[in-house]
Amino acid sequence: MAGAPVHRRAGGGAPVPEVGPASLADPAEYVADPAEFLADLAEYVAIPSVSRDAEPATMLAAAQFLARRLSFADGRVERGPGHPVVRGEWLAAPGRPTVLAYGHYDVQPAGDPARWTSPPFELTSGTGPDGAPVLRGRGVTDDKGPVLLVLAMARALLDREGALPLNVKFLLEGEEEIGSPHLAGYVRDHAAALAADLVISADGAMWRPGTLSLPIGSKGLLALDVTVAGPSRDLHSGRYGGVAANPAHVLVSLLASLRGDDGTIAVAGFDDGIPALSAGRRAEIAAVPFDPDPFLTAAGISAGFGEPGYSTLERLWERPTLEVNGVSAGSSATIIPSVATAHLTARLVPGQDPAHVLDCLTRHLLSRPTPPGVEVTVVAEPGAVPAYRIAVDHPAIRAGTSALQSISPGSSVLLDVVAGTLPATTMFERELGAKTMFFSFSTSDENLHGPDEFFRVARIGEGMRAWERLWRLLADDLAPGRA
Amino acid sequence: MAGAPVHRRAGGGAPVPEVGPASLADPAEYVADPAEFLADLAEYVAIPSVSRDAEPATMLAAAQFLARRLSFADGRVERGPGHPVVRGEWLAAPGRPTVLAYGHYDVQPAGDPARWTSPPFELTSGTGPDGAPVLRGRGVTDDKGPVLLVLAMARALLDREGALPLNVKFLLEGEEEIGSPHLAGYVRDHAAALAADLVISADGAMWRPGTLSLPIGSKGLLALDVTVAGPSRDLHSGRYGGVAANPAHVLVSLLASLRGDDGTIAVAGFDDGIPALSAGRRAEIAAVPFDPDPFLTAAGISAGFGEPGYSTLERLWERPTLEVNGVSAGSSATIIPSVATAHLTARLVPGQDPAHVLDCLTRHLLSRPTPPGVEVTVVAEPGAVPAYRIAVDHPAIRAGTSALQSISPGSSVLLDVVAGTLPATTMFERELGAKTMFFSFSTSDENLHGPDEFFRVARIGEGMRAWERLWRLLADDLAPGRA
Repeated sequence: MAGAPVHRRAGGGAPVPEVGPASLADPAEYVADPAEFLADLAEYVAIPSVSRDAEPATMLAAAQFLARRLSFADGRVERGPGHPVVRGEWLAAPGRPTVLAYGHYDVQPAGDPARWTSPPFELTSGTGPDGAPVLRGRGVTDDKGPVLLVLAMARALLDREGALPLNVKFLLEGEEEIGSPHLAGYVRDHAAALAADLVISADGAMWRPGTLSLPIGSKGLLALDVTVAGPSRDLHSGRYGGVAANPAHVLVSLLASLRGDDGTIAVAGFDDGIPALSAGRRAEIAAVPFDPDPFLTAAGISAGFGEPGYSTLERLWERPTLEVNGVSAGSSATIIPSVATAHLTARLVPGQDPAHVLDCLTRHLLSRPTPPGVEVTVVAEPGAVPAYRIAVDHPAIRAGTSALQSISPGSSVLLDVVAGTLPATTMFERELGAKTMFFSFSTSDENLHGPDEFFRVARIGEGMRAWERLWRLLADDLAPGRA
Repeated sequence: MAGAPVHRRAGGGAPVPEVGPASLADPAEYVADPAEFLADLAEYVAIPSVSRDAEPATMLAAAQFLARRLSFADGRVERGPGHPVVRGEWLAAPGRPTVLAYGHYDVQPAGDPARWTSPPFELTSGTGPDGAPVLRGRGVTDDKGPVLLVLAMARALLDREGALPLNVKFLLEGEEEIGSPHLAGYVRDHAAALAADLVISADGAMWRPGTLSLPIGSKGLLALDVTVAGPSRDLHSGRYGGVAANPAHVLVSLLASLRGDDGTIAVAGFDDGIPALSAGRRAEIAAVPFDPDPFLTAAGISAGFGEPGYSTLERLWERPTLEVNGVSAGSSATIIPSVATAHLTARLVPGQDPAHVLDCLTRHLLSRPTPPGVEVTVVAEPGAVPAYRIAVDHPAIRAGTSALQSISPGSSVLLDVVAGTLPATTMFERELGAKTMFFSFSTSDENLHGPDEFFRVARIGEGMRAWERLWRLLADDLAPGRA
């Protein structure tokens, strides 16, 4: 399926896809002019701002594009170590709370263009997996579309009403897809200027199409490498078999000791600090309309398996995990390998302290009996992050729920947990003392990071309306004072 | 250290190294003329008969070289599938036993010439690790030198005495270094013509310098691959962690179950058929002058480890092994790997039936509890071979011991076991009904298969004298009748 025809804007610029009128709601529903939004997004997607390997000039062009769209908020590009940061603020609502809108302008590499239906850095229109009209292009849903709709909405609101309902600061980085190596330092250095009562992230994703959802947390993450070193070189398995400890044997035994056959994690202290799952939360989760079978099948899992006593959603949202991501030793030759290594990661839930969990894992791995002639080393990756939670009754969650419901009256909003890890949350809490809420109109099935990344057209109007509604609600509900 | 100077033979040919007179024993000790032997070996080493990738013409040239040196025995090249076979026979000793001399003319690839002191396919002289004079070149000790000295000795003996003490057949193949894919078929097809009372292999190696040794057996070998297949693709460890069985977890648990922490193999039936190690054999092994520490240290093993209740030599010579040669799954990314695999080999001792051991291993691996959503597959490599033994009181071993002692009067001969696997032994026993004895003058430290392969000069004269003595002893001791 090729991309739909495009037309060029008068005066040049990026091609803009023709999105049929039937796929756009009533323009009045858009807050901002949808045609102008599409033209803007086409221009933005055409800048290949791949943080991993783009030229500095390309990253700068994307940052400058965003800064221009932020002219209503004194939008500007700030250079520093790494790719530039785009900042802006509109602070003309004295006595009102202040929110900090976060997002990013960098994108993942496009990969092999042959795996794309249309050129990755050209915005095209097409049809999504569920038949809905979509826009296609690298970054369209992660995170160019979801950020741009906030700026368009804010500009339109200012044009129409002359003011925003609350104070807004903007922080848009260019390194999210490479792990935000300079973000924490930047926020620390500009903590006073960035101070806010709430951070709202336009990055993230609704957990699946057809369900409005609002994340109330994400899991923490720690990673470690286990190395078992034995003979100084690979040895002939005949000449030395049976007389030297085989590092592969030692490693598999260490790794096997980490869990029981029933899937429980068998590391003393691993669960320390995790409160028991309350009957109330269990009931909430049980009430979520969720069938694990299609969820698992879609991922290529023929049958689910996990910690006894928990449902699939409880395991995903409420329980920590410990996974062996990789194991490597030797080859298919008749050798005793010199070294065997494994990479492990744990996803943490509220209550777990990453340092304590690392200690427990390290102690477990180093205290197991091992034969003479091998040495076990455990190296923790720097940058472990704890789980993040925002209270279900936090004003942000109440306002967010209400804002989402406003775009689809009568529907319910699922308060989900991101089973992955969002390090920015804990960073903002630490540096600014502010909670982060995720308010993204991306959906997790939109091929983020893969070929044919897409963004549902309907999310444009929904997102604009919901962000406007969210700001109005927060203007009344959020206690001001931090900025 | 560069190779020593060489001179060319009159009339061209390969360069021949100058081996100082001090490094050659009294020429009278050589049976054959040492200078002629060196010239022959230089010409032979200069033919790069790398069975893995040589041109057919090169392999043929090496085979033709050998056939010419076998002219006293109607030496000839036989073409067929694979690289040619060199055959010959001298059968003018009616009523005497017949031996079949086996060896190979192919060599391993030389690898990077930069890792060699002198060009790999040029015979040079130098000094070995123990200060002894050596010859250097690919194949010089595996197996060109040890084969050529038999032919030179036989020719000289015939010249001098007009007859050999027994009947001799020759079978020299060109595919030993690639696993002898056509040897068994060739021997089967020519079983009548190759019939012998004993096979004597010029291939093999004394287990270490400074000790005369004669192998009385080798371990068997079987190999298998274990695969644990889970999700149809690698999964994000956040999004799917804790709800799907991780194939790496299952694999390490299966592999860990194969042995106890103390090094014992925990597979029911694995040891079936192995007789208890007799007090007599234990005493023999205990009497071997062997210090395990330098042996292990030289291999880069900081401390020995193995099955409880056995010494290092007992483990090497008398006990089966089970080694994980390689494990592979996933990577250092935050994933649940789709598949985890391992390659295992077992070395078998007399009494073990390879098919039964494979059954036991497969049953063990397939009967362990595994979580839903994974599939365990065990695939045995074809070509498993049982252990091989020749009786300590077999006439060949008695004659071999005596022949070795004759070259170093007063020294003892160690009856060792090759902890590796020599598939030709069981093949000759099956196809010809004949036992094989190993009578090689290679030594296991001579960089077989590596750069700077070498052959001790002293072994030339020793080998010629010992082979002559062996044949004389066998002429009297071996019962004729098979050929």
